[in-house]
Amino acid sequence: MPLLWSGYSLLYLEGQEKAYTQDLGRAGSCLRVFSTMPFSYCNSAACHYASRNDKSYWLSTNNPLPMMPISCGEIYQYISRCVVCEAPAPAVAVHSQNTSVPSCPIGWSSLWIGYSFLMHTGSGDEGGGQSLTSSGSCLKDFRTQPFVECQGPRGTCHFFANVYSFWLTGVSHKEEQGLAPQTRTLKTTSQQRACISRCHVCMKQ
Amino acid sequence: MPLLWSGYSLLYLEGQEKAYTQDLGRAGSCLRVFSTMPFSYCNSAACHYASRNDKSYWLSTNNPLPMMPISCGEIYQYISRCVVCEAPAPAVAVHSQNTSVPSCPIGWSSLWIGYSFLMHTGSGDEGGGQSLTSSGSCLKDFRTQPFVECQGPRGTCHFFANVYSFWLTGVSHKEEQGLAPQTRTLKTTSQQRACISRCHVCMKQ
Amino acid sequence: MPLLWSGYSLLYLEGQEKAYTQDLGRAGSCLRVFSTMPFSYCNSAACHYASRNDKSYWLSTNNPLPMMPISCGEIYQYISRCVVCEAPAPAVAVHSQNTSVPSCPIGWSSLWIGYSFLMHTGSGDEGGGQSLTSSGSCLKDFRTQPFVECQGPRGTCHFFANVYSFWLTGVSHKEEQGLAPQTRTLKTTSQQRACISRCHVCMKQ
Amino acid sequence: MPLLWSGYSLLYLEGQEKAYTQDLGRAGSCLRVFSTMPFSYCNSAACHYASRNDKSYWLSTNNPLPMMPISCGEIYQYISRCVVCEAPAPAVAVHSQNTSVPSCPIGWSSLWIGYSFLMHTGSGDEGGGQSLTSSGSCLKDFRTQPFVECQGPRGTCHFFANVYSFWLTGVSHKEEQGLAPQTRTLKTTSQQRACISRCHVCMKQ
Amino acid sequence: MPLLWSGYSLLYLEGQEKAYTQDLGRAGSCLRVFSTMPFSYCNSAACHYASRNDKSYWLSTNNPLPMMPISCGEIYQYISRCVVCEAPAPAVAVHSQNTSVPSCPIGWSSLWIGYSFLMHTGSGDEGGGQSLTSSGSCLKDFRTQPFVECQGPRGTCHFFANVYSFWLTGVSHKEEQGLAPQTRTLKTTSQQRACISRCHVCMKQ
Amino acid sequence: MPLLWSGYSLLYLEGQEKAYTQDLGRAGSCLRVFSTMPFSYCNSAACHYASRNDKSYWLSTNNPLPMMPISCGEIYQYISRCVVCEAPAPAVAVHSQNTSVPSCPIGWSSLWIGYSFLMHTGSGDEGGGQSLTSSGSCLKDFRTQPFVECQGPRGTCHFFANVYSFWLTGVSHKEEQGLAPQTRTLKTTSQQRACISRCHVCMKQ
Repeated sequence: MPLLWSGYSLLYLEGQEKAYTQDLGRAGSCLRVFSTMPFSYCNSAACHYASRNDKSYWLSTNNPLPMMPISCGEIYQYISRCVVCEAPAPAVAVHSQNTSVPSCPIGWSSLWIGYSFLMHTGSGDEGGGQSLTSSGSCLKDFRTQPFVECQGPRGTCHFFANVYSFWLTGVSHKEEQGLAPQTRTLKTTSQQRACISRCHVCMKQ
Repeated sequence: MPLLWSGYSLLYLEGQEKAYTQDLGRAGSCLRVFSTMPFSYCNSAACHYASRNDKSYWLSTNNPLPMMPISCGEIYQYISRCVVCEAPAPAVAVHSQNTSVPSCPIGWSSLWIGYSFLMHTGSGDEGGGQSLTSSGSCLKDFRTQPFVECQGPRGTCHFFANVYSFWLTGVSHKEEQGLAPQTRTLKTTSQQRACISRCHVCMKQ
Repeated sequence: MPLLWSGYSLLYLEGQEKAYTQDLGRAGSCLRVFSTMPFSYCNSAACHYASRNDKSYWLSTNNPLPMMPISCGEIYQYISRCVVCEAPAPAVAVHSQNTSVPSCPIGWSSLWIGYSFLMHTGSGDEGGGQSLTSSGSCLKDFRTQPFVECQGPRGTCHFFANVYSFWLTGVSHKEEQGLAPQTRTLKTTSQQRACISRCHVCMKQ
Repeated sequence: MPLLWSGYSLLYLEGQEKAYTQDLGRAGSCLRVFSTMPFSYCNSAACHYASRNDKSYWLSTNNPLPMMPISCGEIYQYISRCVVCEAPAPAVAVHSQNTSVPSCPIGWSSLWIGYSFLMHTGSGDEGGGQSLTSSGSCLKDFRTQPFVECQGPRGTCHFFANVYSFWLTGVSHKEEQGLAPQTRTLKTTSQQRACISRCHVCMKQ
Repeated sequence: MPLLWSGYSLLYLEGQEKAYTQDLGRAGSCLRVFSTMPFSYCNSAACHYASRNDKSYWLSTNNPLPMMPISCGEIYQYISRCVVCEAPAPAVAVHSQNTSVPSCPIGWSSLWIGYSFLMHTGSGDEGGGQSLTSSGSCLKDFRTQPFVECQGPRGTCHFFANVYSFWLTGVSHKEEQGLAPQTRTLKTTSQQRACISRCHVCMKQ
Repeated sequence: MPLLWSGYSLLYLEGQEKAYTQDLGRAGSCLRVFSTMPFSYCNSAACHYASRNDKSYWLSTNNPLPMMPISCGEIYQYISRCVVCEAPAPAVAVHSQNTSVPSCPIGWSSLWIGYSFLMHTGSGDEGGGQSLTSSGSCLKDFRTQPFVECQGPRGTCHFFANVYSFWLTGVSHKEEQGLAPQTRTLKTTSQQRACISRCHVCMKQ
């Protein structure tokens, strides 16, 4: 597939404590230039840049999380890269709601398999989600904290503890029969992966 | 059109009092398995399932509304079913903003007619909406309460009185001329249907 | 491209202090009939029209902003018009994140150039945004206040000072190297335009 | 007790979709002059009066609720009156959390008995509450809708169905022993009164 | 009256985009030490100080507003000073709801006269209000922007244009008779002062 | 001081995702009877008890936190007890904003010393705060999680990781001189205590 551009994976921007999330399966989530503060805001009187505490959130790489705010040239190793390609047909995500990878429908070919990513919240409980049809709802890798918060005017990024990700889970047979689900807390990565729904991104041939 | 899968019509999921709505015209709103609690949430420390009062909202069937919470095996009769088909071309909704059904543009064929569904709110005034282009903004049937709230960890569903649906209305000639609209309260179903905009879902031939 | 319909450019509707935004690049943002109050809301007991202080927000024209509420027949000159056409292929927005207009990818033809519109907030800090893939994120003209608020039941519209628009900005070389961005306040239109990212809406040939 | 002034019982004001509630037990909730729009708002550029859809909420009288918006001279019969007196000692509310009226502590005299009013929400889920120490948390009369919403710039008031009041309830013996409470829906006034906690407003002698 | 301490007039603190306002008539709004970031936050895992973009808001002095962020030693001239005194009796605010200063009740002596301050909003539409009984609802001076926002971790303060103050207004005779109020926009300080309700802070002798 | 009643320390109640906080220094925060669901809500149609996922939050004891939801008879050992006494004069909190305990003003006697508690957030970022004048802003003991969330209709309580407490901190000399504060993360209890402001609750003799 021909490459259109490459860039950095933007999840969402928050201005004046209001968030707007990009669909990770569409080209708009791949910004060519990374900046902790890629936007300004205007009212009838003036435009302002980097004056208030606005934020940007980006998909993160697999690098181990640092404890302290990340600054300057160090940031780039934590921000996930992306490419935008010209696809001959639209890609669609299929979710199994159990722990086995669903197969692509007949006449569709496989692009990648992953974990079913539903939505996220960051600072101030603002957040957003992914359409479960979009390839953005099927992340190749599962991590409890798949994105990083950058604080625009300070020029730093940080992995905060009160940033949440929401994932489709496998549904047990008991729940399917209508019984109330059982409360569970999963601490190890292997426990967590054994609970999250799997998905497949497929493209019409 | 070839069938890809069948399932249950998910309207939106609410985790930690934050909602994310699915587009009812896209495949992501058709979950193969029904569960009152189809997701879990994670932060850097752990993942949690069914521990807090998270919620799911589903399109409902035409069955008469029960007064009490619905549990166990009874739930299925109130949850709308869906199928995902492979369409040769995208479907588009057309809205008349009056009480007559709009016709499809020339060169487009009719899929179904319905009522113009705009948005919805549930618990805590959280909610979402439908793109007016999407076939999800054209529900075949009009009901004042077209969806049901399920309370994840309790495993029950309920039709609450403070759940709202928003619909495009017909615009009167006086309003078109710029006069202020008149306040109206409509109590009977026939009055209500006579006020709601009609729509048509069409597909390019 | 064949014309499907013409209408008025709806940005978003707010019912009971909850907003839902239309994608300006899709047909759903072009309503055939203008009304300050184009929807009603229902719960299980009744439907209501124009009873509470609901609002609609519309893209505005280039006409100079009036100071006072606009009523009756005067409104139409401030509401932007739109047409919905049948395109042979999907249109996509490309953003430069600097002040030069990006070129369309090879094999794509130019539809229009513009300024990178990201999101907006109105009354009560409610608002929404545009997918950066959508042609709705590339407005032909830059203005600090590109939309107008109409107050449904009163039948008037007004340009309020606490209505905000958010735009992608050009990123400086220093920021690309990871330095904290510098706070700026831009008061004149020429300063503002020199700061906002440019974009190009392209269509696959 | 000497009378300081008389007026109208203000519950809360909502400006720009943000509410601030007055303590019903203090003099600030008794405004001398009634107006649907008793305030204006300012930013650094200007002050505005009655330009946006701001609201005021007032305690209501026992008059039967009208279905339609109330306007002009009719409003006064639905707005509760108040007097501010100079008390020799502070008044305190005591709540029983069951259906019998609690007695005043020894050395305190009785001012009135009532029902334990906790909090309220109106338009857009904005609202507030009462300190359970304040005499404002003990309303003499129980009604499911003890207040009315006035829409400032239109000059009318209305009893809306999605306005809620919250009341302390009697706690059953089973719950005191730690069992989960049972869901109940109470439709008649006598059922409702039999469920709400009683209170006593007392003054130190 | 004996002096207890002097300090700086804190209006409210905002942590994680949630605000809590101090009553300006009580000692808790007078902090002995000024800091742009006077608090930290904790969850079960750790406490954090100055890591996120938290904010503090302070009453401002009459000094002319600067256009740019204020830093370092310059801040102090813009932050209002306060003293906490031991009063022999509680002080109470009385509001006239017109443009003449109300007199104190018989047996009460005058402390100061002012303008009726109701509530405020800052970043993200968060804010709070004053009890109309409290002396904090009667500010000696009227200004459209009586407070300043300090951004904790950056150590700077700024007068932003989308910070709002809400004031009781005088009620006209027509409104008292139940007519809808007229929309007004007031641009000059003298117009504004002629519209705001006056108040008197009185103390029982 | 004569005892009026004893009970359980209520911090706040949340109904329909809206919270109202009690002042911990006033009698209203001391409920005689503990229940995970001490209130019901009403609109014009009916009253409801324990039907939706409402919550109550209570000050907790020093018992080590359990990992799992707490149910039935086990709850009582985690809920802080309180007594309401008749004080001869009002109590006032004094905060040092450093790590030494402030002394009571001359003519005031000491009631207790503690740590300066400012505000809190729980589920859905809802929360509230304490007036810094109130004795409720001076908690005898410092813990990162001083309260517990009870889920009404399920009858259980739980210490969640995304529940936050906010505390006044000591202000360093550098900050007093206007320098930007330094980011810190404090993991051990001794580090945390060395950072939190101390306070003293005093009563006029």
